[in-house]
Amino acid sequence: MNLLEVIELNARYGDALDRFDLATWQALFTPDAVYRAQARENFDRRLPLAAIYLDGHGMMTDRITGIEKTLVFAPRFTRHVIGLPTLDATAAQLPVPTTARTPFIIVQTVTTGLPEILATGCYHDALIETENGIRLASRNAVYDNALIPNSLVYPL
Amino acid sequence: MNLLEVIELNARYGDALDRFDLATWQALFTPDAVYRAQARENFDRRLPLAAIYLDGHGMMTDRITGIEKTLVFAPRFTRHVIGLPTLDATAAQLPVPTTARTPFIIVQTVTTGLPEILATGCYHDALIETENGIRLASRNAVYDNALIPNSLVYPL
Amino acid sequence: MNLLEVIELNARYGDALDRFDLATWQALFTPDAVYRAQARENFDRRLPLAAIYLDGHGMMTDRITGIEKTLVFAPRFTRHVIGLPTLDATAAQLPVPTTARTPFIIVQTVTTGLPEILATGCYHDALIETENGIRLASRNAVYDNALIPNSLVYPL
Repeated sequence: MNLLEVIELNARYGDALDRFDLATWQALFTPDAVYRAQARENFDRRLPLAAIYLDGHGMMTDRITGIEKTLVFAPRFTRHVIGLPTLDATAAQLPVPTTARTPFIIVQTVTTGLPEILATGCYHDALIETENGIRLASRNAVYDNALIPNSLVYPL
Repeated sequence: MNLLEVIELNARYGDALDRFDLATWQALFTPDAVYRAQARENFDRRLPLAAIYLDGHGMMTDRITGIEKTLVFAPRFTRHVIGLPTLDATAAQLPVPTTARTPFIIVQTVTTGLPEILATGCYHDALIETENGIRLASRNAVYDNALIPNSLVYPL
Repeated sequence: MNLLEVIELNARYGDALDRFDLATWQALFTPDAVYRAQARENFDRRLPLAAIYLDGHGMMTDRITGIEKTLVFAPRFTRHVIGLPTLDATAAQLPVPTTARTPFIIVQTVTTGLPEILATGCYHDALIETENGIRLASRNAVYDNALIPNSLVYPL
C-alpha cells in the first residue's frame, strides 16, 4: 500500500458518489466494513451518535435501495473535492491496516439554485489490502458543520 | 503516462488560469484540441449545447484576445482547487489516449466582496503524450450549477 | 525532493491546523522560516504589508501562545483543502531550495452556523530538505479575498 493507491481510492470514492453510482461506492468497502457520518462535536467527545451508521454491505444495500427507490427529496448534484491523505507513516510501504485522515469539501447544487457547501470534514479511515486492491475496512466521515443545509441523503 | 503526470498537468492548468496566464493555459492543449464548458444537464442528456466551445488553438487565441482586450467585466480573482483524477486503469502505464474524470471547485472573489463558489463540476478529458509531456487532446468542463453567479468570462 | 513529498507536507500542514495542533504546524517550518499571510492585492503590487508576519520559530511560538491563551474569539472549525503544487521542474529530482505554488480553500464553521469560505488563495513556498524530511523555509499564504469573514485567528 502506498500514498498513490490511497489517492486513487479517494478519487474513485468521490467520483462514484457524484455520478450516483452507489454500487461502485459500496464496492470500495470490504464486505464487513463500517461506514459512519458523524458530527465533529460528537466525534471529538467520543460520543457514539452518528447521522448515518452502516455496518457491512447488507446495511449499505438497504441504504442504497432507500435512496434509489423510497426516499423523496429535491434533485441535487453533489461534488466531492477530497484533499490529500495524512497517513501513519511516510514510508512507501505502509503498515496494514493503515489509518488515514483525509479532508473533504462537498458542494451541493439543488435543482436550479446556486452551489452551496453541503459539508466539510475529515474522513477517518482504516485501509487494508485485498486481492482487488486497497479497500476501506472502515470510514468515519466526520463533518465540521453540525447544521447541514437541506438534508443528508447520500453518504458523505 | 502515469497518475503523477496527470496531477501535474492539472496543477499547472489551475495555476495558469488563476494567474491570468492564458498563454500557458492554451499550451496545455494540443493544437487541434477541443475545449468545452458545458452544463451537466446538457452533458447528462448528451445534448451538444455548451457555454464555451473552442475548437483548436485558433479559437482559443480568439477567446484570449476577447478576454484581454475586448470584454468588459468586473475585476475578479478566481481560485481553482482541482481534485484527484479517476483514470481508465490503475496501471502505472496507462493506455493512450487516456480518458480521465477530475472534480473541480472554482471560487471567485469579485472586487472587494466575499468569496463565492463560481462553479463545481468535473473535467472529462482525453490525454495524450507529446514530446513536451502530456497534453489535453480534449477537455469538457462539465459544471453542476446551471446558474453561474456573475458571468462566465474565463475558461473553467 | 519529489512531488509526493511536497504533497505529504501539505497534507500534514492542513491536517495539523484543522486539529488545532499548532506545535505540529510549527514543526513543518525550519527554525528561521518566515511565515506570512498576505492579501493578493498587496502581493501582486509587491507591497510588504501582511495580515500575519512571523519571522522564525520564536515569533510562531508567541502567536501560538496568543491563540491558545490570550485571544478571545468565537469557537470555530476550519477545514483546509489544499490543491496540487506547481513546482519549478517536472523532474523527480528537484532543485533545492525548490519553490512551489499551491492553491488552497479554507472553509470555516463558526459555532452552529453554516460553513462559509474563510479564504482562498495560493501558498508561495520555498522548500528545503532536512534530516527530518522536507520543510518550509518560507511560506506566504496569499489570499484572494481582501475581506475575511469573521476574523483571522489561526494561520491560513
